[in-house]
Amino acid sequence: MKLYLAQQNYHIGNFEANTQLILKAIAQAKATQADIVVFSELCVCGYPPRDFLTFPHFITLCNNAIATIASHTQGIAVVIGAPAANAIAEGKDLHNAAYFIANGKVVSIHHKTLLPTYDVFDEYRYFEPAYNWQTVTYKGVNIAITICEDIWNLGDNPLYRICPMDKLMEYKPQLMINLSASPFDYTHNEDRRAIIKANVIKYKIPMVYVNAVGAQTDLIFDGESLVFDAEANLIKALPVFAEAYDEVTINPDGTCAEPILQANNTVPTALLNPATLQANAHIDYIYQALILGIQHYFTKMEFTKAIVGSSGGIDSAVTIALAVAALGASNVTAVLMPSEYSSSHSVSDAVQLSKNLGNPYHILPIASVYNSLLQTLEPLYTNTPFGVAEENLQSRTRGNLLMGIANKHNFILLNTSNKSELATGYGTLYGDMAGGLGILGDVYKLQIIALAKYINRNGEVIPTNIITKPPSAELRPNQKDSDSLPEYEVLDALLYQYIEQLQGPNEIIAQGFEPATVHRVLKLVNQNEYKRNQFCPILRISPKAFGSGRRMPIVGKYLA
Amino acid sequence: MKLYLAQQNYHIGNFEANTQLILKAIAQAKATQADIVVFSELCVCGYPPRDFLTFPHFITLCNNAIATIASHTQGIAVVIGAPAANAIAEGKDLHNAAYFIANGKVVSIHHKTLLPTYDVFDEYRYFEPAYNWQTVTYKGVNIAITICEDIWNLGDNPLYRICPMDKLMEYKPQLMINLSASPFDYTHNEDRRAIIKANVIKYKIPMVYVNAVGAQTDLIFDGESLVFDAEANLIKALPVFAEAYDEVTINPDGTCAEPILQANNTVPTALLNPATLQANAHIDYIYQALILGIQHYFTKMEFTKAIVGSSGGIDSAVTIALAVAALGASNVTAVLMPSEYSSSHSVSDAVQLSKNLGNPYHILPIASVYNSLLQTLEPLYTNTPFGVAEENLQSRTRGNLLMGIANKHNFILLNTSNKSELATGYGTLYGDMAGGLGILGDVYKLQIIALAKYINRNGEVIPTNIITKPPSAELRPNQKDSDSLPEYEVLDALLYQYIEQLQGPNEIIAQGFEPATVHRVLKLVNQNEYKRNQFCPILRISPKAFGSGRRMPIVGKYLA
Repeated sequence: MKLYLAQQNYHIGNFEANTQLILKAIAQAKATQADIVVFSELCVCGYPPRDFLTFPHFITLCNNAIATIASHTQGIAVVIGAPAANAIAEGKDLHNAAYFIANGKVVSIHHKTLLPTYDVFDEYRYFEPAYNWQTVTYKGVNIAITICEDIWNLGDNPLYRICPMDKLMEYKPQLMINLSASPFDYTHNEDRRAIIKANVIKYKIPMVYVNAVGAQTDLIFDGESLVFDAEANLIKALPVFAEAYDEVTINPDGTCAEPILQANNTVPTALLNPATLQANAHIDYIYQALILGIQHYFTKMEFTKAIVGSSGGIDSAVTIALAVAALGASNVTAVLMPSEYSSSHSVSDAVQLSKNLGNPYHILPIASVYNSLLQTLEPLYTNTPFGVAEENLQSRTRGNLLMGIANKHNFILLNTSNKSELATGYGTLYGDMAGGLGILGDVYKLQIIALAKYINRNGEVIPTNIITKPPSAELRPNQKDSDSLPEYEVLDALLYQYIEQLQGPNEIIAQGFEPATVHRVLKLVNQNEYKRNQFCPILRISPKAFGSGRRMPIVGKYLA
Repeated sequence: MKLYLAQQNYHIGNFEANTQLILKAIAQAKATQADIVVFSELCVCGYPPRDFLTFPHFITLCNNAIATIASHTQGIAVVIGAPAANAIAEGKDLHNAAYFIANGKVVSIHHKTLLPTYDVFDEYRYFEPAYNWQTVTYKGVNIAITICEDIWNLGDNPLYRICPMDKLMEYKPQLMINLSASPFDYTHNEDRRAIIKANVIKYKIPMVYVNAVGAQTDLIFDGESLVFDAEANLIKALPVFAEAYDEVTINPDGTCAEPILQANNTVPTALLNPATLQANAHIDYIYQALILGIQHYFTKMEFTKAIVGSSGGIDSAVTIALAVAALGASNVTAVLMPSEYSSSHSVSDAVQLSKNLGNPYHILPIASVYNSLLQTLEPLYTNTPFGVAEENLQSRTRGNLLMGIANKHNFILLNTSNKSELATGYGTLYGDMAGGLGILGDVYKLQIIALAKYINRNGEVIPTNIITKPPSAELRPNQKDSDSLPEYEVLDALLYQYIEQLQGPNEIIAQGFEPATVHRVLKLVNQNEYKRNQFCPILRISPKAFGSGRRMPIVGKYLA
């Protein structure tokens, strides 16, 4: 039996584009004489559709798309993800389903059992889990179809009470097909290979695993669809971060016609010790993920050009370099907005950066706007010392200028805030926190330094001085980040323990961090939820990003 | 048996304050010789604790609080809400639980069965549902304890497969106690009385229902704890929107020692036809809810003073009047920021408003800042016509001035955007969309007019001209909202069908709306998700508010 894998980039709610993409893959599969073409989870509507699923009209459009797709399945079978109605009155109205369609007809519908409802996932909000299981036989092959999370409980995942594949094995399937929409984080593709291999080892039948690819706002799906034969040999590994198609022929004994992928056949052990942040681990994957995230945000929002405030610091430099890699140099406008507190090298470093990258830049000093703000506010500022309010005015002046250019020329403002400063609230709402997409909001400062060095791996793109000088917001004379925050070596490690590892203050102190620093930093994190709540979507590259995967009370008083 | 009802305002994560509040109620209950004191759902940590629940240290603090509370229960029983560990390995780590504590010891722990996972609720994200049920007998009375949503399925709620009270009735209880944290919306308190009464009619035993009160950022809990006797007579109805304590004595036959509340004993039929928006329905409740929402945001964030941009329009006028009612006139600073496009009456109306209310105001013309922005941007604005970019610059200048004052004087900026304009994206990010709390973001324009008239019910507070003049953003000469949007009578009714009623375009057109208008408005709603995503929390007064209860994709292409 020949299977054709379609690893594609869908657009949420764009039924016309998604259907065309799916029909293209079906036509390709037919041309290769494939028996079955396999797509990814909820690909008909794009994943995650979120509350679009609450509109009956949206579900009608899903059903219409399935009907159109079915009408193109003469001589071939299609396994494809879409919502399906819950046939019984009780429970949520929908299932997250895989449709098995052949020769114009829906042969069977398979419901997802394990509904991830944690981090960025809200599946129990929309879907009723499967309560019954069935396999489907096609051309003499008995096939077990599961959806994403369903293969993540082999009986030892403490989140779940059911192991769907155990249920399906009662029907003695000869092949497993899994449809996924499994987003990237810098630990996850290794986990994913390991769990798929573990399934094959446990059940002793081959698995064809098809994952979506492409970014949907904050979530970046990395693809890497996989095929393992019945002996747990890796046969196919589709590319990471790209659309891809491939075929595999599975023999009746569970072996494959294609050779074993020797080079890739070892499931890698995690390079990253999950208990510590290693700033330079997986940096190549993070680099590719961020570029894909930028590209797809622009194509799906139907924009082509970006604008970035260029401060001469490392965050904006890395953001501009990533944007240039994603969109092309001519599509990225850098704006330098020096003030009286800017150091002389800030402008020259930022200019050199854009000269190296070949992207357009402008220099707009902020003094005139800043002074007119101070003058207008004079009645309310009389006899008060220079402080945070004045620093914020400078930052918001820059935000205004950037948005003024973005609105005039139809650019999207890219935000350069990093995870370390978003965590501690070291940023100005509507100022340096402005923008349509947060490029580095899930990247700690030390990881950004590693990214800068990676970008320079074949020669200087980011001027070395930008990488080596002490970080500063330059909002008052001789200011440095370390005036207000611990050194990033301490801060990032501490934040990682709290944010990614969910450690409490006592556990973090027990690791050797200074108690006063721990209490101060955790308080900053929790007190600044109100700022992050108004922040733009952040490209997610870690297992715990700020945004929809981390939902904290704003008036909360915990550790604050 | 005498029960004491404690309807209290908790603060999420503030264990010290919550525990003190709880101990105060226990002392009061002891003083009245009560047998049992009843609290609300998850009151030990405050509801909703959201992802605080993912920190083991947070759960430890919950357990410590329960231990402290237990040590104060000599001679009395306490029924109180807190998370409880899931004793078995599989499933989520926690239950949403009610602890029955007496004489210093936890007698029994009762788990919530129905976990709301829709709208603003995420309970399946944290909790494992009950799989076993038990009653508890105290002083000879067999008691069934349920938590909030548990009483909302009488066998006909299509969301759920289980009816927890049916399970509990197998143990023949004589009394039902329900602990709730049920947030207000303008339809919900009537629903709530109806469902409680329906439970009592079905099971023929009394119910003591205790709800939380107080605002937690966007969610406003309205209290109105209730007691029905076994014959479904209303015996107690605690106040709405206020902390309150009361006692009730339930006789062995299910009657109560206290008289039946004749005046309140009719379950009101919904004043609001759920299929249509009636702008003036429930306006007194909405008024009270918004005031409570403002008050508690300030107390829980530990602020006392607000600032509001005062445009002379109805949204800012209503916001200022509400803020004055909530915080006191001296704590609300209005700032008038006229431009060359402001009409002459804008300033005089706004001045008159603050004179009527007695709150401080300042007049800061924006010309100087706006002109310096235009001058600085000149290299990038050359040969372009006046347009949205210039309008946004004016709006952001005002946002900057307001935030400049807020930061300098430790005020919170209240946002005045209404639901109609947030829906359609008729607002400027970082400009009029700036602020810490959205006061009117869940209130349609026509409801705001009704609110203004309600505020003037005993005499003119809001100058009549503010209520009657055509709405305008005044960002270009002679601009009116109706230049860009349908008249609010049409717009609000259309938005209500889409947002609250989840109707698709065909259904809305079938109601008589002009097709082109329907398509244009739905497209505006969906295309502006990226703006709402950066908006501040909105006080929720409807069954479907923008914010955590409505989660839409940003790159989504549905109807856009």
